[in-house]
Amino acid sequence: MPRTASAPRAIFRHPPRRGGRPGEVPGTLAVDPAAPRSEVRVIAYGPGDDALRELALDRVEQLDALDLAVVWIDVVGLGDEETLRALGQRFKIHPLVLEDVVHVHQRPKLESYSDQYFLVTRSLHPDAGLDTEQISFVFGRGFLITFQERRGDGFEPVRERLRRNQGRVRTLGADYLAYALVDATVDLLFPVLEAYGDRLAALEEAIFAQQAGEALARKLLSLRAELLSLRRVLWPMRDALSALQREESPLIDPTTVPYLRDCVDHLAHVIDMVEHDREAISSMMDANLSMTSYKLNEVMKLLTVIATIFIPLGFVAGLYGMNFDRAAGPWNMPELGWAYGYPFALGVMLTISLGLLAFFHRKGWL
Amino acid sequence: MPRTASAPRAIFRHPPRRGGRPGEVPGTLAVDPAAPRSEVRVIAYGPGDDALRELALDRVEQLDALDLAVVWIDVVGLGDEETLRALGQRFKIHPLVLEDVVHVHQRPKLESYSDQYFLVTRSLHPDAGLDTEQISFVFGRGFLITFQERRGDGFEPVRERLRRNQGRVRTLGADYLAYALVDATVDLLFPVLEAYGDRLAALEEAIFAQQAGEALARKLLSLRAELLSLRRVLWPMRDALSALQREESPLIDPTTVPYLRDCVDHLAHVIDMVEHDREAISSMMDANLSMTSYKLNEVMKLLTVIATIFIPLGFVAGLYGMNFDRAAGPWNMPELGWAYGYPFALGVMLTISLGLLAFFHRKGWL
Amino acid sequence: MPRTASAPRAIFRHPPRRGGRPGEVPGTLAVDPAAPRSEVRVIAYGPGDDALRELALDRVEQLDALDLAVVWIDVVGLGDEETLRALGQRFKIHPLVLEDVVHVHQRPKLESYSDQYFLVTRSLHPDAGLDTEQISFVFGRGFLITFQERRGDGFEPVRERLRRNQGRVRTLGADYLAYALVDATVDLLFPVLEAYGDRLAALEEAIFAQQAGEALARKLLSLRAELLSLRRVLWPMRDALSALQREESPLIDPTTVPYLRDCVDHLAHVIDMVEHDREAISSMMDANLSMTSYKLNEVMKLLTVIATIFIPLGFVAGLYGMNFDRAAGPWNMPELGWAYGYPFALGVMLTISLGLLAFFHRKGWL
Amino acid sequence: MPRTASAPRAIFRHPPRRGGRPGEVPGTLAVDPAAPRSEVRVIAYGPGDDALRELALDRVEQLDALDLAVVWIDVVGLGDEETLRALGQRFKIHPLVLEDVVHVHQRPKLESYSDQYFLVTRSLHPDAGLDTEQISFVFGRGFLITFQERRGDGFEPVRERLRRNQGRVRTLGADYLAYALVDATVDLLFPVLEAYGDRLAALEEAIFAQQAGEALARKLLSLRAELLSLRRVLWPMRDALSALQREESPLIDPTTVPYLRDCVDHLAHVIDMVEHDREAISSMMDANLSMTSYKLNEVMKLLTVIATIFIPLGFVAGLYGMNFDRAAGPWNMPELGWAYGYPFALGVMLTISLGLLAFFHRKGWL
Amino acid sequence: MPRTASAPRAIFRHPPRRGGRPGEVPGTLAVDPAAPRSEVRVIAYGPGDDALRELALDRVEQLDALDLAVVWIDVVGLGDEETLRALGQRFKIHPLVLEDVVHVHQRPKLESYSDQYFLVTRSLHPDAGLDTEQISFVFGRGFLITFQERRGDGFEPVRERLRRNQGRVRTLGADYLAYALVDATVDLLFPVLEAYGDRLAALEEAIFAQQAGEALARKLLSLRAELLSLRRVLWPMRDALSALQREESPLIDPTTVPYLRDCVDHLAHVIDMVEHDREAISSMMDANLSMTSYKLNEVMKLLTVIATIFIPLGFVAGLYGMNFDRAAGPWNMPELGWAYGYPFALGVMLTISLGLLAFFHRKGWL
Repeated sequence: MPRTASAPRAIFRHPPRRGGRPGEVPGTLAVDPAAPRSEVRVIAYGPGDDALRELALDRVEQLDALDLAVVWIDVVGLGDEETLRALGQRFKIHPLVLEDVVHVHQRPKLESYSDQYFLVTRSLHPDAGLDTEQISFVFGRGFLITFQERRGDGFEPVRERLRRNQGRVRTLGADYLAYALVDATVDLLFPVLEAYGDRLAALEEAIFAQQAGEALARKLLSLRAELLSLRRVLWPMRDALSALQREESPLIDPTTVPYLRDCVDHLAHVIDMVEHDREAISSMMDANLSMTSYKLNEVMKLLTVIATIFIPLGFVAGLYGMNFDRAAGPWNMPELGWAYGYPFALGVMLTISLGLLAFFHRKGWL
Repeated sequence: MPRTASAPRAIFRHPPRRGGRPGEVPGTLAVDPAAPRSEVRVIAYGPGDDALRELALDRVEQLDALDLAVVWIDVVGLGDEETLRALGQRFKIHPLVLEDVVHVHQRPKLESYSDQYFLVTRSLHPDAGLDTEQISFVFGRGFLITFQERRGDGFEPVRERLRRNQGRVRTLGADYLAYALVDATVDLLFPVLEAYGDRLAALEEAIFAQQAGEALARKLLSLRAELLSLRRVLWPMRDALSALQREESPLIDPTTVPYLRDCVDHLAHVIDMVEHDREAISSMMDANLSMTSYKLNEVMKLLTVIATIFIPLGFVAGLYGMNFDRAAGPWNMPELGWAYGYPFALGVMLTISLGLLAFFHRKGWL
Repeated sequence: MPRTASAPRAIFRHPPRRGGRPGEVPGTLAVDPAAPRSEVRVIAYGPGDDALRELALDRVEQLDALDLAVVWIDVVGLGDEETLRALGQRFKIHPLVLEDVVHVHQRPKLESYSDQYFLVTRSLHPDAGLDTEQISFVFGRGFLITFQERRGDGFEPVRERLRRNQGRVRTLGADYLAYALVDATVDLLFPVLEAYGDRLAALEEAIFAQQAGEALARKLLSLRAELLSLRRVLWPMRDALSALQREESPLIDPTTVPYLRDCVDHLAHVIDMVEHDREAISSMMDANLSMTSYKLNEVMKLLTVIATIFIPLGFVAGLYGMNFDRAAGPWNMPELGWAYGYPFALGVMLTISLGLLAFFHRKGWL
Repeated sequence: MPRTASAPRAIFRHPPRRGGRPGEVPGTLAVDPAAPRSEVRVIAYGPGDDALRELALDRVEQLDALDLAVVWIDVVGLGDEETLRALGQRFKIHPLVLEDVVHVHQRPKLESYSDQYFLVTRSLHPDAGLDTEQISFVFGRGFLITFQERRGDGFEPVRERLRRNQGRVRTLGADYLAYALVDATVDLLFPVLEAYGDRLAALEEAIFAQQAGEALARKLLSLRAELLSLRRVLWPMRDALSALQREESPLIDPTTVPYLRDCVDHLAHVIDMVEHDREAISSMMDANLSMTSYKLNEVMKLLTVIATIFIPLGFVAGLYGMNFDRAAGPWNMPELGWAYGYPFALGVMLTISLGLLAFFHRKGWL
Repeated sequence: MPRTASAPRAIFRHPPRRGGRPGEVPGTLAVDPAAPRSEVRVIAYGPGDDALRELALDRVEQLDALDLAVVWIDVVGLGDEETLRALGQRFKIHPLVLEDVVHVHQRPKLESYSDQYFLVTRSLHPDAGLDTEQISFVFGRGFLITFQERRGDGFEPVRERLRRNQGRVRTLGADYLAYALVDATVDLLFPVLEAYGDRLAALEEAIFAQQAGEALARKLLSLRAELLSLRRVLWPMRDALSALQREESPLIDPTTVPYLRDCVDHLAHVIDMVEHDREAISSMMDANLSMTSYKLNEVMKLLTVIATIFIPLGFVAGLYGMNFDRAAGPWNMPELGWAYGYPFALGVMLTISLGLLAFFHRKGWL
């Protein structure tokens, strides 16, 4: 996003706008010219042990030759209008769906069309921080198309399971595959959030280690902004997955439902972690501010004690520094002429000091 | 609004009252005398390539001659009672609807009447800030009437699409046209909110660049008030559009429903941006106040350190400025007569200073 | 209310208790002895041009002579047990309803009985501030009884419409009349809230005009308390009206429903204004407190700068005010004997001052 | 409760635990050994004028002799296991109900069993503050059993109504009696809350009468804690009563329903008062803290003004107290030798003072 | 959890992640290698007096010999994959359930499968603080399997009731046993929360006993974090139990329903206590911060009073310490030569002091 790039230090970055130009014909397939070219990898499989074929797709017609139970078409890079349009036509994808696929700043959502589902999720990229990329799923009877913005995803374990025929994935339909991929996406969140938790713990220690102040406030603010961005993604994602789980549709096999419920559960767990961190950051921001208040209080007390003790002493010293002419009369500063005048003055000062110290002690300020 | 005009600097401007005088007969068409005269532009169209006619409407009877599938009557300026009344009669518009059309401070809403819908939205004007104007839609079978307060709107792209027969707009009904216009209205929000986000980013930078304080507080307050006004408009607008999408009515073609859903989605995205900005402003107001706290703390610490070091030193200096008569007795300030009295005094001062500096250092205040 | 009268300055006045004594038989008609005597005005009307009769009601039997479509009995002053009881008997009003009518501190509510509705609303009195009085409506087929606490109401425009046969009011039933009167009541709120908004704008200006402080805090608190009282009335009133609008009952003509919906809409608009003001007051209270923080910060900085500059200077002056005996040895304050000792001391002071000023300037405190 | 007794000064007292020991068999009738012995008073009545009998119940079998329409068994003191068990057997009360009756720290709730209702409410005791005691109601066809912890209740007016055959209570069933007693319980809340409101008003006055500070904070905190305890009781009580009102059961006569609705209404009014007070206390706590901020601000300004004026003056005085040897050279403090040196110095001081005063005045600090 | 172990002092500990590795096949039984080996204790029982058998289970086949009504299999320690798998096969437990059983950081939840329920609860361990461990329940017709992480539980009272045939537990089914065990788990919470309440009461006293400050803030923060962790567990647990109570399933006997409702009630009571403590902690954190504010205010006032009194006095002393040459002219400090110059100066000082004291007194600062 140009705007973000030009203000890289802003803590509160705007969620970028959905793609299209204002006034564009709805359903227009307006490919972002900066998006990477599409690579299309296909895995077709069935329950049988050698019923799996992988290929790189150049033309959509190659799909005709595949007569396996499920076809997974994984489109990485959304810069290739022709490919998208060809897939759209072959699988009868609604133009609005294709528009949303390329406008990669959608909120997660589930939309059901007569014979297919369109699910938008957002995933952390394995190499980036808490920034998310959009992964769109279109699936119907016997096919699943995934659209990713960039290379690098969390799908590899699922591909391995497919290839090795591990678990039940080869025996079930496109709905289960969609579940497995979404779940893999959710799994990516755990290590990132744990690292995040470690950063919070370090900040927490810093607050109580006398380092409370402006710099920490800024760091907390920035962590909080990151978290809020992630949270804004997770809640609608959970809504979308819950909705999918509750759908009663021939496209969702009853066997898949407990798995979807499990996935919603994982997401709930992630959201729990995020909400926990959010509360922790709030508490830490309060603590950070309070700590500086407490420190200020301590500083002020010290200032008061020292000033309060020395100000009267200084006054006494100043008093006997006055130059009244003792010769002018017996009432003019006779103390200066006393044989023990200086010890007397020191005694007065000591008495004042001790009295004030006692007073402060009684007040609990020392 | 007179009140607003007389207090142009108030941050928290009241949402102006709905139009009518208290006690007015409900359903009275009380045209605001200050409103601009109405201009009525008609576009009638059908699917065919030359099935489009545009005209400026002077008399309602001109509509009789148009036998195309859809008639869009765009009324700009609501100062012309007769025109409104004529339209109302021809299209059997409920008096309460006409009343709401001219009382231009309605909250967005959807009302359904037996054979037509009344939808109130609010739109940013392309040339104003976050202030909104009311755009009312009345549509039924084969007609759509839009009522705008002033010239200048976001409808031009739709008019172009109609003229050039782009997309599906010419082949679909008045419901789709209404959708297209509402969507164009929503599209106007994106660039404005992005500019708004840039202003926030600049303020954020200022806060951390030692400029936290009253002036920033005021700016933030004013941005927040603007945002709250906008927000108060967007939520009911989303409710109205969601309601429209869920309506099951012969007036809404099933083909239009996904488009309406898409439009609700866009609005949700806008609301996301607004909520994000609202949270950002809250955080920034907190940060602004905290930063001044942190600065005050720093200032106070410096004051304390300096005062605490010099007050005892000053006292020592004052002590030896006392005028006790050394001649009166050997106990009167013998230090003054020591050969190294002055270096001794300076040494005492230095010792005190170093001791205090060490103390402050250990406390972490230096 | 005695309590309120004895503590007229309290900001947070309790909503007064409902009338009855603890333990009273429920449904007892316990007229408040301090309530003004009842005056009963009747307007009976039908659609015909001269089908309207107005009379002051002394005995309930006078109603027998009226054979017009709708009878509106407007009871002003609730001090007359006999009248209330007679009306109750004639119109078969439930004893609990009559009890609520005279216990004038009910929350707004709608209760439906077999053949009549009981609606409690609260209205601003044209001559009082944000204090509300209770107006109760009992209506059924062909009759509406309104109960008001005191003279002075917002019903006059409706009476005029009845007399002049303006609008549709004469052609419709008691339900429409009830709507018209409630709507007139709601209309009274707009000018009051606008005046309220002006007071807020004035306070806002005062906050930023260096007048932030305790006095403003108190004013804001008091405005907020008034607002909260009003708000506590408006929300249940909206609930009651929404409920009435959704009722499907032969007592509510379908023609009346859009008008009721419109009235709910007006109330929503009023609530919007109140919520807006509530947010504005919150923001202003924060701003008021922040402003004093910012001012304190500024004051503290000045104190620090001045103290920090003069404390070292004062120390130097004190230093050379010491009375060490220069005769006692060459190390005793030789500076005092230098030919340029005084300029040297002034130079030292100037250097310190300039150094500190430079330091403060670099810190951004000047 | 032992814990509460041992910490009588704690503001935030825990709601005490429900009675039973961990691991106890559910439905065990574990009478609190410290509870007072049970006294059982019976009032049986029917519609007829002399159809009322009151007796003190020693053995449950005495009930056999009563053949009146409704039997009200009022158990005061829950220390008598045998009585409770006998009642439980005779009226077929579920063991869990009896367990809850003696574990007197239940939240208010309604439970329906096949032929009886179990309603737990909490009542203020006429002689205690905002502390509540549990009153349990079990009622079915023709009987009502009430269980109270201690003597002293708000039921006397209802007993009087029964004895004098006032109102409709003698003609209706046990459900109406239950309503009447609950309503009497709710009525007890009004005077207590009004007294509470008066205490708040007094505190409010204190805050603005320069008494803001720690002591008030503590009082407010303590009032707030009391209020929160009460609130925690009232909300579930309202839920329970609303549920009872909505029950469609042969045990609830339709005649009773409007009375129950009225009682829910009264409770809503009480909750309104409590919520109002809660908001008031929040506002007052804020105001209390703000007032001390404002006062601190004022104090600091004074300190600044005085220090800022006198620090430079003191410096000038110190300057001319230096002992540079005027004999050592012409540049050593020549002012001391001027004929008008002293007036000159005083003039300098006066100029500084006036300048600073003007500065402060312009800043608005004086 | 390694992370927690390495940062044992962090206040805000993350809820640990669910067990599995990212990308693991869903439904994999991935036993935590660090988990203790499983011990399986079986209690089978029926209504008859000697119809109870207890055994330690080594092989699942041992269950074949038990032909009593209910079999309770209590698995303690989840480190034994084989045992879990054997139980899973015998009782047809869904693989996802077994996965959740060993991934011991689930949120409490209820899942229903065709002929069994899976309930996850979390329990305090009798010897740990507010940390919870997961206890999973799988039950169907005639069997209940409980899975605990470690030895030590709150189930002993239920085992005793079974052995002694106390209460109804032996006559009812597995659903009642599940209820009894969950209820025993809930019972463990009461003493812990009471101890917690005592700690809060002690902190509260400390706040008002002049000990407000940083250390208390930290303790409060840490108690609050513990409480929030507990709360995050209790709410979903209540949801799960409420759901179980509302299930209409042949697996839940109607007799059990009131007991389940009672258990939900107990949990509501616990949640009440937790929410109460949460509010109390919030209030105490506010109070802690306010108290330091109030103390700071007091300190500042003292500083101001002392500084304000002595600064002018010091100035007067400094004034008469100036060395203007009285010989140079009659205007140079004539006071120094007055016979009563010193008493005059002291009088001036006294006057200033008294004046200021009076001023402060009038301001209410003394």
